[in-house]
Amino acid sequence: MNYTTGTGELQEWLVAEEGFRTSWLGKGETVFSLGNGYMGLRSVTEEHYANEQRNLFVAGTFNKFAQNEVTELPNAADVLWMEFILDGTRFDLTQGTILKYNRTLNLKHAELVREVTWQSPDGKVYDLVFRRFVSMADLHVIVQRVSITPRQESTLAMTSGINGQMTNSGVQHFLEGDKRLYDGRLMQQLQTTTESGIDFAFHSIHRFSLKGSFEPKSIIKMDRRQIFFDYSDIRIPAGETLTIEKYSTVFTSRDNDVMSETREELANLALNATRDIEARGYESLFNDHVKAWDDLVWSHAPITIESESMFDQLAVRFAQYHLAVMTPKHDNRMNVAAKGLSGEGYKGHTFWDTEIFILPYYTYTNPKIARSLLEYRYLSLPGAHQKAKENGYEGAMFPWESAWLDDGEVTPVWGAADIVTGEATKIWSGFIEQHITSDIAFAAWQYYHVTGDQDFMDRFGYELLIDTAKFWASRLEWNDENGQYEINQVVGPDEYKEHVDNNAFTNYTAHWNIQTAIQYVELLRREKPELYERLDEKLDLGAAEERFRHVLELIYLPQVREDGVLPQDDTYLQKEIIDLTKYKNQQNVGSMFYDYNLEQVNEIQVSKQADVMILMYLLEDLFTADVKRANWEYYEPKTLHDSSLSLSTHSVLASDLGDQELAYDLFRRASEIDLGPNMKTSDAGIHAASLGGIWQAVVNGFGGVRMTGGKLRISPMLPKAWNSLRFSINWKNETLDVHASRNQVIITRRTPTLEPLIIEVYGELREIKETFTSEVLSV
Amino acid sequence: MNYTTGTGELQEWLVAEEGFRTSWLGKGETVFSLGNGYMGLRSVTEEHYANEQRNLFVAGTFNKFAQNEVTELPNAADVLWMEFILDGTRFDLTQGTILKYNRTLNLKHAELVREVTWQSPDGKVYDLVFRRFVSMADLHVIVQRVSITPRQESTLAMTSGINGQMTNSGVQHFLEGDKRLYDGRLMQQLQTTTESGIDFAFHSIHRFSLKGSFEPKSIIKMDRRQIFFDYSDIRIPAGETLTIEKYSTVFTSRDNDVMSETREELANLALNATRDIEARGYESLFNDHVKAWDDLVWSHAPITIESESMFDQLAVRFAQYHLAVMTPKHDNRMNVAAKGLSGEGYKGHTFWDTEIFILPYYTYTNPKIARSLLEYRYLSLPGAHQKAKENGYEGAMFPWESAWLDDGEVTPVWGAADIVTGEATKIWSGFIEQHITSDIAFAAWQYYHVTGDQDFMDRFGYELLIDTAKFWASRLEWNDENGQYEINQVVGPDEYKEHVDNNAFTNYTAHWNIQTAIQYVELLRREKPELYERLDEKLDLGAAEERFRHVLELIYLPQVREDGVLPQDDTYLQKEIIDLTKYKNQQNVGSMFYDYNLEQVNEIQVSKQADVMILMYLLEDLFTADVKRANWEYYEPKTLHDSSLSLSTHSVLASDLGDQELAYDLFRRASEIDLGPNMKTSDAGIHAASLGGIWQAVVNGFGGVRMTGGKLRISPMLPKAWNSLRFSINWKNETLDVHASRNQVIITRRTPTLEPLIIEVYGELREIKETFTSEVLSV
Repeated sequence: MNYTTGTGELQEWLVAEEGFRTSWLGKGETVFSLGNGYMGLRSVTEEHYANEQRNLFVAGTFNKFAQNEVTELPNAADVLWMEFILDGTRFDLTQGTILKYNRTLNLKHAELVREVTWQSPDGKVYDLVFRRFVSMADLHVIVQRVSITPRQESTLAMTSGINGQMTNSGVQHFLEGDKRLYDGRLMQQLQTTTESGIDFAFHSIHRFSLKGSFEPKSIIKMDRRQIFFDYSDIRIPAGETLTIEKYSTVFTSRDNDVMSETREELANLALNATRDIEARGYESLFNDHVKAWDDLVWSHAPITIESESMFDQLAVRFAQYHLAVMTPKHDNRMNVAAKGLSGEGYKGHTFWDTEIFILPYYTYTNPKIARSLLEYRYLSLPGAHQKAKENGYEGAMFPWESAWLDDGEVTPVWGAADIVTGEATKIWSGFIEQHITSDIAFAAWQYYHVTGDQDFMDRFGYELLIDTAKFWASRLEWNDENGQYEINQVVGPDEYKEHVDNNAFTNYTAHWNIQTAIQYVELLRREKPELYERLDEKLDLGAAEERFRHVLELIYLPQVREDGVLPQDDTYLQKEIIDLTKYKNQQNVGSMFYDYNLEQVNEIQVSKQADVMILMYLLEDLFTADVKRANWEYYEPKTLHDSSLSLSTHSVLASDLGDQELAYDLFRRASEIDLGPNMKTSDAGIHAASLGGIWQAVVNGFGGVRMTGGKLRISPMLPKAWNSLRFSINWKNETLDVHASRNQVIITRRTPTLEPLIIEVYGELREIKETFTSEVLSV
Repeated sequence: MNYTTGTGELQEWLVAEEGFRTSWLGKGETVFSLGNGYMGLRSVTEEHYANEQRNLFVAGTFNKFAQNEVTELPNAADVLWMEFILDGTRFDLTQGTILKYNRTLNLKHAELVREVTWQSPDGKVYDLVFRRFVSMADLHVIVQRVSITPRQESTLAMTSGINGQMTNSGVQHFLEGDKRLYDGRLMQQLQTTTESGIDFAFHSIHRFSLKGSFEPKSIIKMDRRQIFFDYSDIRIPAGETLTIEKYSTVFTSRDNDVMSETREELANLALNATRDIEARGYESLFNDHVKAWDDLVWSHAPITIESESMFDQLAVRFAQYHLAVMTPKHDNRMNVAAKGLSGEGYKGHTFWDTEIFILPYYTYTNPKIARSLLEYRYLSLPGAHQKAKENGYEGAMFPWESAWLDDGEVTPVWGAADIVTGEATKIWSGFIEQHITSDIAFAAWQYYHVTGDQDFMDRFGYELLIDTAKFWASRLEWNDENGQYEINQVVGPDEYKEHVDNNAFTNYTAHWNIQTAIQYVELLRREKPELYERLDEKLDLGAAEERFRHVLELIYLPQVREDGVLPQDDTYLQKEIIDLTKYKNQQNVGSMFYDYNLEQVNEIQVSKQADVMILMYLLEDLFTADVKRANWEYYEPKTLHDSSLSLSTHSVLASDLGDQELAYDLFRRASEIDLGPNMKTSDAGIHAASLGGIWQAVVNGFGGVRMTGGKLRISPMLPKAWNSLRFSINWKNETLDVHASRNQVIITRRTPTLEPLIIEVYGELREIKETFTSEVLSV
């Protein structure tokens, strides 16, 4: 384990890095990344190192470099950039000697602190402390504070400014733009994206103090896409501390909290905001920031785990931290990206990761955010209609990868090299990984039943559910021979099987989608005639319902075999079985592709990730415990967990199957995807869905929380390592506090109310007034 | 001095680096850069370091990122890229211990060799030797050879391939393109520039040997703009040597030696060429390469200096080396860039640096190349006409910065920050630094008189000289009050004086240009009626001559004052005189701008570089020795030599003035611009003009070679440190060998001929038949 809890009072809040190695840079940059949903900042160091990856992303500011490339989140200017020359020698941890090193992310304060005692190659010693945060209270603000205490009288020179030369793996998304210095101190850089025409305004200003504030000797410089100060001749007496604060702001013309018509207005507004920020100062900004985090996350949806291993508590807080950092809660035109805002991986695009892995966290803890994320899908219906039309279908066919609302499909077409042909492999997901559409429908339905948000359903939900069902009804293919509707030539959740027929997950969830739509059409006609009429105009409900009813019973649903195994698709079970030991024991995911190309993998009984198993998690009522166990035993040994979406799902299912120790093992493995000893896993960014999955492993798994058929179930079952688990969930607009220990569970309704609440606890329906206590029972 | 001669037999051919420091990276990358005029390759290491600058430029492949940015040479894919994992640890000189380090550029072989003995942080020891060259025999070929000898049994993993993510300071000039693997080994990446639509084809292939050749375990990978192999599990027994050769080729659709209509044709041709290259193997390619260098440079235009300091010999060979590396001799649509092909500085643009500083080297040693460079100017006449028209003038107004032939002016409009206003400073050179036009005319005239190349004159030279004179004749402004033509609001060579009136250099060379044009119009009418007629159609010679004759006597030429000082312009001598000691003693050029902005510098008697002095070098007949001395004494103390063009000019002039020791000092200082102890001077690229200037300091300065009024003068005068100087020059199609020692000079005509040759030697005209020997005399 290279990331551990810190020491001292807040240790279960501290993610600490063991030491400095250049080969670990990418990992630390991602794991320690900061943000506030508006923007995300990779935690590079102030000074540069080889193979570092400096990234600043602003949610929803997509751009496309050229026609044959895909829309992506552009890497914005680097405002962290500072280089220090101490007594003539560049501060560089690869040179000289590191006498002390500590880098710690304080999750509670969302602050990154690096403490270094460095001996330069010349033998001089310096204590340096670097602090920074991206304000949760003011979404546009990045603040750094650097303290330098030389052990001998020293002279500092420093370069610091704004570097707009950033690219996405070499792709420049910004025009040259303008630079200017204001007030003799305040640097401004304005840039505009090349294709989407989004204006960005970056500002930075420094403040120096050494026994009182002062202004060192400096010269302002400009280079291509860069504005920066060269400071020089800063004398620091031995043992005294020089403090440098750098206040930076980021604004764009897409911001929904900024009223600006022109780039000049935006620039002026940002300029003045930066002046205000600097005037307020570090302490005041930091206090507001900490309070905002507490309100939004820590006191809002606390999870407390008493475990043999403090790491478990840290892991779930780490997940909550990053989910808050990556979620653009401020703007329903944006969604969560597969790597959050912490790396270039997956280009800032949104996948089913949101609906199936991340959304449950928000649905159960912060419905407002869940609703905003679902509204994003509603707002992107035009793109989904477009995609359906292009493919010859009706209704809403959601893009596998989604970026700006009206982009439609943005999945890249070409991927990794084919080791056999030498050509790039075609990525089929954008064409035929179609289950995303029912995933979105399912998430909206789940949101509605957990929150009871009728306004959402009236405005967006019913339409989403019916429009997606319309897609499926048009997508079905009639098989005359078998007298059934099939869904052929798809990719299911298991992306190691391309062009398969009747993927169980796809067929079952499509069936569910149409079935649910029928219920809602009926309900609307019966109970909400006005809404029915409005949607009828849009969706032609009469014809749609007729079609739904016609196809529903004729949709082919793969059936469980005698041995309990549900075929993943029409051919999976007939494919070759090989010894997968080597790949199951792999150090790095994807090791099988050293030996096989995708075409060959396609012909082997091997899965990338949960497929049948995730179906049995989402639509759990359709399958018995025995069937679930049989499928676990069949598929898990053939699943390489090459997707980070796989382990947490398996953990929840292991909890469901009553194997808490296996579930715990899987929870730990899922937690180690980002926090574990493999230092290369997170280079391209954090594993957003896995973090949502970690929360699910705790609350839906060990906490035993589930909504089925509109009913709530809470049946906690802890692993041996845990003494107790406390968490809170939202249920239809009230908060339930759950305290599970090894023997007992206490469920408390936070707000006193007269209306009784029915919850299934360990298989029994219980009516709860204020609080309910139960022994822990095996299910 | 951080660069010294090497050791051993070839020591006067070896530029050796003292040690490895990350802060020296930029210097070494430039100083050691390789190339062949077709392409230039910065000498980054195989493995990556922070703040490195990986550059590969192909001459003449200009592209423009966006409308408001300027045309520049795009940074092409990195084929040098190799990363080594030795026993699980990344090979990285900033980690572990460097037990031995040697990096040496062998100028004779144009080969870069790095020898390292490295102890990893784990204590294991490895001997590594890295060799590479960019073939002078086959312009498209880059070859690397890496030898690894572990002191213990070791396992190597390696990543190596083609990285097309390169940018110019963040600006991406290429579309995504295509990648493919051929033959299971041969990597291909095709890219096209975004605006100019130039196709690039990159290919790389590896060859491994360890007691015989073998193919290690590998997997081919593709990422955005990248194709590369991951090799693993390469076992090397203790003390055995693994050798890896990487053969890479670069082709573009602009290549004039390649016949391809489509990108596919280009790709196929390049693919097959790479297969051939690999089949030929390292030794064979290297031998051809060394021979090509010998033919082109070392046996063609040798210079031998016997000096107290071996550095002097090295410095002039270093200059010749880089001039060969940077000069696109193969294609007259291209010219030399101000930083050669060794860095992004000045964007690959061509300045007056070519004509005034570099061209004399070629004119006197390799007229074919000189002619090609002049033809470039002739071919870019359409751009010069365009620029004249846009500015309301006639004739050929050459761009201050020149890129592709028909681009016209490409000088960027905005430069460094103004420390007073905070805004970017406007760069006026592109608008009003107009002397470039007479510089080109002068160089063509010089070329003609040195080489006697009548064919050049007939086809290009007369037209150039008359067309440029037409520009000047239209550019002149009539001053009614003084009854004279003036040239107002210009920038002269001294760029610290903007918007000056009657810059002496500009007025005198414009006058010379018109005067010379009159002579040639007369001559054509008299002696070459057909050519006269052809040019008359193009240039309206009758009207032009009339205008020339009308203006010539009325052009205001600033006159030498009583004290011998020639006013640099109308106002220079009236400006404030301040104590410049601080800036004359500066460590880095441009230090004055820490205290003053350009507007303030404009009002002080301070010069960036030679201005009046370079006039007195080019048109030396117009000024007496006393006047030259008076102006030296007035202007040199006010000249900061902030341009690298300044020191070598001053060295030649000091030689002319008979102060050989001062000349030597200036020669050394000029040599140290790139090879000296300031490790930051060359980051943006080599100082092309300064290198041409070093040759001039030797041959035109100490060698006393000059063409004036069509006559040759050879009057060597060595500094004390030198015992002898040998060099060869071209004079009207024959080669003269000059051997000067402290007391005697011997001039030998290499090819026996009956026609006598008249040369001025130490003030006397001498008729030389075969050889001529003279005592060294003071002039």
